[in-house]
Amino acid sequence: MLEKLKEEVCKANLDLPKHGLVVFTWGNVSGYDPETKLFVIKPSGVPYDQLTPADMVVCDLDGKKVEGALNPSSDTPTHAVLYRQFPGLGGVVHTHSRWATIWSQAGRGIPAYGTTHGDYFYGEIPCTRKMTPQEIGTATTGAYEKETGNVIVETFRSRNVDPNHVPAVLVHSHGPFSWGKDCAEAVYNAVVLEEVAMMAWHTENTNGVQMQPMQQELLDKHFLRKHGANAYYGQAKQH
Amino acid sequence: MLEKLKEEVCKANLDLPKHGLVVFTWGNVSGYDPETKLFVIKPSGVPYDQLTPADMVVCDLDGKKVEGALNPSSDTPTHAVLYRQFPGLGGVVHTHSRWATIWSQAGRGIPAYGTTHGDYFYGEIPCTRKMTPQEIGTATTGAYEKETGNVIVETFRSRNVDPNHVPAVLVHSHGPFSWGKDCAEAVYNAVVLEEVAMMAWHTENTNGVQMQPMQQELLDKHFLRKHGANAYYGQAKQH
Amino acid sequence: MLEKLKEEVCKANLDLPKHGLVVFTWGNVSGYDPETKLFVIKPSGVPYDQLTPADMVVCDLDGKKVEGALNPSSDTPTHAVLYRQFPGLGGVVHTHSRWATIWSQAGRGIPAYGTTHGDYFYGEIPCTRKMTPQEIGTATTGAYEKETGNVIVETFRSRNVDPNHVPAVLVHSHGPFSWGKDCAEAVYNAVVLEEVAMMAWHTENTNGVQMQPMQQELLDKHFLRKHGANAYYGQAKQH
Amino acid sequence: MLEKLKEEVCKANLDLPKHGLVVFTWGNVSGYDPETKLFVIKPSGVPYDQLTPADMVVCDLDGKKVEGALNPSSDTPTHAVLYRQFPGLGGVVHTHSRWATIWSQAGRGIPAYGTTHGDYFYGEIPCTRKMTPQEIGTATTGAYEKETGNVIVETFRSRNVDPNHVPAVLVHSHGPFSWGKDCAEAVYNAVVLEEVAMMAWHTENTNGVQMQPMQQELLDKHFLRKHGANAYYGQAKQH
Repeated sequence: MLEKLKEEVCKANLDLPKHGLVVFTWGNVSGYDPETKLFVIKPSGVPYDQLTPADMVVCDLDGKKVEGALNPSSDTPTHAVLYRQFPGLGGVVHTHSRWATIWSQAGRGIPAYGTTHGDYFYGEIPCTRKMTPQEIGTATTGAYEKETGNVIVETFRSRNVDPNHVPAVLVHSHGPFSWGKDCAEAVYNAVVLEEVAMMAWHTENTNGVQMQPMQQELLDKHFLRKHGANAYYGQAKQH
Repeated sequence: MLEKLKEEVCKANLDLPKHGLVVFTWGNVSGYDPETKLFVIKPSGVPYDQLTPADMVVCDLDGKKVEGALNPSSDTPTHAVLYRQFPGLGGVVHTHSRWATIWSQAGRGIPAYGTTHGDYFYGEIPCTRKMTPQEIGTATTGAYEKETGNVIVETFRSRNVDPNHVPAVLVHSHGPFSWGKDCAEAVYNAVVLEEVAMMAWHTENTNGVQMQPMQQELLDKHFLRKHGANAYYGQAKQH
Repeated sequence: MLEKLKEEVCKANLDLPKHGLVVFTWGNVSGYDPETKLFVIKPSGVPYDQLTPADMVVCDLDGKKVEGALNPSSDTPTHAVLYRQFPGLGGVVHTHSRWATIWSQAGRGIPAYGTTHGDYFYGEIPCTRKMTPQEIGTATTGAYEKETGNVIVETFRSRNVDPNHVPAVLVHSHGPFSWGKDCAEAVYNAVVLEEVAMMAWHTENTNGVQMQPMQQELLDKHFLRKHGANAYYGQAKQH
Repeated sequence: MLEKLKEEVCKANLDLPKHGLVVFTWGNVSGYDPETKLFVIKPSGVPYDQLTPADMVVCDLDGKKVEGALNPSSDTPTHAVLYRQFPGLGGVVHTHSRWATIWSQAGRGIPAYGTTHGDYFYGEIPCTRKMTPQEIGTATTGAYEKETGNVIVETFRSRNVDPNHVPAVLVHSHGPFSWGKDCAEAVYNAVVLEEVAMMAWHTENTNGVQMQPMQQELLDKHFLRKHGANAYYGQAKQH
């Protein structure tokens, strides 16, 4: 069942430690199959060096396990909400990567300060509000992981931000989620996010500067030359 | 004598440089055997790349060598105090890992600022008070390493903190100790501590923020979903 | 056509990830052939681990492709301007390396604070002004990449700085370009720039200091003992 | 001539990039032979991956080459002064390692903030004063490298610091020198210096702290348990 997707998702999960984004088992990647409306996700708490495609777990859009011997990642309900609410997503990544987590813990979105940011994120990468005690629940009650997805969705809806234009979010006091058209792109965006988070933190702490977000024209130029209808970056338009 | 434990302790010591926690010989791991009330510890000043299980030293709870050709780590009396005073400990680690040492030198405990912290430490990781001149002693007098253990115990007792809920401490002007149910978990917690220390330092220095510890509800949720009676993280409860 | 230069340029591009200066495809190196007035540059958006000399693209000084199956780097017009306006350049490098990009985003030049800087850069490494909306253009109009070259040239001309004495620049809100007598030296200078950028940032943030640029005499000494008519560093003058 | 020392010095030089202390050729190690009063040093500007013991250069205490096909390091006169003025030195190291250079550029000595420092350096690691224009000289005049040695010696003499108790110095606006009883120990101390420099910088920038040097009693304890007449660290006293 979804064997090819399992291989892609397994590889994408293994790319997380390769890019230095995770310590131990602190991350998970899923990939979505629009035909069956199912997604494939990493099992919970399994070390990366033991992961095989056969370990991947298949879930439906309610986050319920459909196939697999192991428990899915405890963050599965968050992934499910994102696939259901953000049309077009083919992959979702969650990590506790250092610099994105630092901004999450500080409760601040990452302003666009340069073209590295603008090449992939069309404006500030937002940070969610704090979750309410009811949303968090207790060890035995509540739907915390599902509510985490809901607060992400609320963050984009309330600010009128298109998740395809800003393919990442910081969950307050927690860490980042990122996404893309497939699980490989979601991992790619997780790497970009970490780079951008590190550089923005230091940019703001550069001696003697009072930062403002970059010029809107420059942001437009960089995002749109890569992602707009008239993109000319890379080999895409070559014939 | 305790050959299996020697192998585990040797491996745990070798994991310290693998995780980037030690330079040269600046760290030591011990493992405890509750049956014999003895513990196995790294010898003093021996390079990691030459360590073998046979080099490990067996000590009793007074920190006296019971078996072994080499001197035990000079920090042995500290380990002995921790095993004697903190029931349930199966392994202890001491390092001078960079970020945990920075907080130790600054004399500050590490507040819980996010779920990475809350997943493993149930609240602030405390820093001990400064030791008194008498506790420190001189090159030829005093029981400095034993007193280091005592000031750690005092830190937890005086604040009513359960060392099984906060499995690490920062010794003022010195560096961290961590522990766990066995020596592998103690090393695991040393890695988490370093991650958390790095992120908390930068969180506090994020531009424009005035940090408060994370919400108690979120801390409860994360610590208890992993460590409470109803833990549901990982594969533990699967049958 | 220019096969030897293609090999050098390919190798120089592969040196960027080796030195930790690029993530994914975020960098490009070109090399210039003064005889034919053509330069060889990396293709756009091709992963480093797939690059071969045969993939390199040959362009003229208007930035037009002369030979090659792939599109040249989207930054090609910037390289072309630099070769045309800065006589003596044999190689140009563009990256988004972390520390140089941080200064670029902050919009500040890097003052000379020590001999590591002075050994290679004869004074402050300048940051360009912001580009105008007209220079930036839109996704479908304007000559943004060419104008990027022009603003670099303006930066050196208006401050009367010799680009052979300060072989790098920071483009505002973007990132660094560096150059040299050939593409290998341009990469070398990109590495030095990153080192110098990291150290200058922290020097300014050292507790209790109010930095001034280093003494002119020391800057003279270090730059001129390596680059002046009477250079005595290295093995160059040995017979 | 001094073949064994050449091997040791070559190995010690190769240890610099292994420990991440140098970029390109930015470092040099020498080793002293008290019998012949000669020292062996790295040649100038030769890449580390091409260094062999046969490349090492033999110099006398005036810094004059006695044997060797290549030019000695341009810092040779500094090494010569240190061997002549600081009795007991068997090895000297110079690098531009990042954190030690940051303190050098800031013109500040590194206070002793913890036991990692105290285990190897008995108090503040001093920074020299700025050199005078006369000491610096020009590209063709002056004895800059020799004067660098002299200002180091002045720094220790004027503060009454024993170079065997504080085996490193920061040269203002330049970078660190370290030393030891042989060239391996000099490299060891260069690694410790870098660790200590990184941690002290961040300790001072920890939120909400106003740092004072560590307690004198703790500094005494740590330095003397390793280096005093009654040292008990490691395997040294074992019989």
